[in-house]
Amino acid sequence: MTETQKGWVVIAGLGPGADRMVTSEVQDILAEATDVVGYIPYVERVTPREGLTLHASDNRVEVDRATHALEMAAAGGRVVVVSSGDPGVFAMASAVFEALEAGSKAHPHWLDLEIRVLPGITAMLAAAAAIGAPLGHDFAAINLSDNLKPWELIEHRLRLVGEAGLAMAFYNPRSKSRPHQFERALEVLREACGPETLITFARDVTKPGQALNTVSLRDAGPEMADMRTVVIVGNRDTRRVGPYVYTPRFAPGHQPGQAAAEKDT
Amino acid sequence: MTETQKGWVVIAGLGPGADRMVTSEVQDILAEATDVVGYIPYVERVTPREGLTLHASDNRVEVDRATHALEMAAAGGRVVVVSSGDPGVFAMASAVFEALEAGSKAHPHWLDLEIRVLPGITAMLAAAAAIGAPLGHDFAAINLSDNLKPWELIEHRLRLVGEAGLAMAFYNPRSKSRPHQFERALEVLREACGPETLITFARDVTKPGQALNTVSLRDAGPEMADMRTVVIVGNRDTRRVGPYVYTPRFAPGHQPGQAAAEKDT
Repeated sequence: MTETQKGWVVIAGLGPGADRMVTSEVQDILAEATDVVGYIPYVERVTPREGLTLHASDNRVEVDRATHALEMAAAGGRVVVVSSGDPGVFAMASAVFEALEAGSKAHPHWLDLEIRVLPGITAMLAAAAAIGAPLGHDFAAINLSDNLKPWELIEHRLRLVGEAGLAMAFYNPRSKSRPHQFERALEVLREACGPETLITFARDVTKPGQALNTVSLRDAGPEMADMRTVVIVGNRDTRRVGPYVYTPRFAPGHQPGQAAAEKDT
Repeated sequence: MTETQKGWVVIAGLGPGADRMVTSEVQDILAEATDVVGYIPYVERVTPREGLTLHASDNRVEVDRATHALEMAAAGGRVVVVSSGDPGVFAMASAVFEALEAGSKAHPHWLDLEIRVLPGITAMLAAAAAIGAPLGHDFAAINLSDNLKPWELIEHRLRLVGEAGLAMAFYNPRSKSRPHQFERALEVLREACGPETLITFARDVTKPGQALNTVSLRDAGPEMADMRTVVIVGNRDTRRVGPYVYTPRFAPGHQPGQAAAEKDT
């Protein structure tokens, strides 16, 4: 009974909130795990069972949590790191690889561990689906938290991406610790995208109390967003049809007839 | 028996290919449908049953297909438009809203139809998960098909987004009808992002024969991509660790200690 099983780490995306948006591979992997690691509200979504240990930790300790997952896997554990949305989009996947890079200096065998990422529905795509199709043309996903980068770099990116004519989705638009920055972001966006461009505030997407609010950038105010809101800014061609908001597939003025999506991936 | 049921249109994302990446809400909606509409290979993924009519059509007829779906729903049908990946990312959702906008002029009651989009795992996020976490910081999703916009606009976007320091995912990178444009895109990217930046070619993601290839932009060639490939270009900080490729959550030089993700959406 002392034989060490081959451990692994799987970083699994639980989607934006509703269980109906979880993929079957994520449901299945939870049945194989010996340990589940994650931020408290995500671990609470996992059904307890015999043989499964739940390790819930506070927010803002991502690298500690990832290192713990790698340590348990190195000891033979089958460890699932649960992440909201998609683990690869402003979530736990990069934290695990950061921890792997740092920890493998002292523990080179960590590089032989099986590490897999199981994608999930990320909040911006659930929000886009809830309102229509505002990300139906080229778009960018930008994290507005200045914990991750200097605020000057965020403004620089908003200007260039707006000038490029891409729609944008914003994660972590506003927090109590930086109430004025989102107001500044809206100013930059009005200049870069034009005041008539539509902006959608999607709060608690797919959860009870989901709220969607679309206005023009001119009428947008910082109080419309908080940390539970995903924000989507369209391009200059984004429009309403009935109760929906969508972005046409074609750039304005480009109408090459019937041929369009061509997507085959 | 002549009473008309209330029809609806649901645009459902089947994910990149593997059934294990389909959400449960997409599986469930197919059981309620009277009609399934879509591009031939996607309709082939739906199990036939009594009471369900499958309407498979060729590629490049997206608006015709969407109009047909709206017509059937207006006549009481429960219509699922199947889409690969996520319907809102270079797929069928925008086409349905385009058809709704055009068709509602002659059929204003179409605006009262229930239309819902069910998100799916889009190819770039499945590709990112397969290789590690190359989209773990800010990124853009760009369709390289010049059916959708002038090639000059595509180059303009690559330059600005590269200058902004975002990672990028490309859909439809290369087709037989435009073999030279992707070569030109690589030239622009080398200038805008630097020749050492990593680029991953992910072909047939999650399907049998999935192939992943990561090289520097310097060593990238146009023959590495075709229409079944999703291409991911990292930012200047994207790196390898063991067999994985990932992008750190922090901008280079920005190390504010433990606090990081802060994501709560």
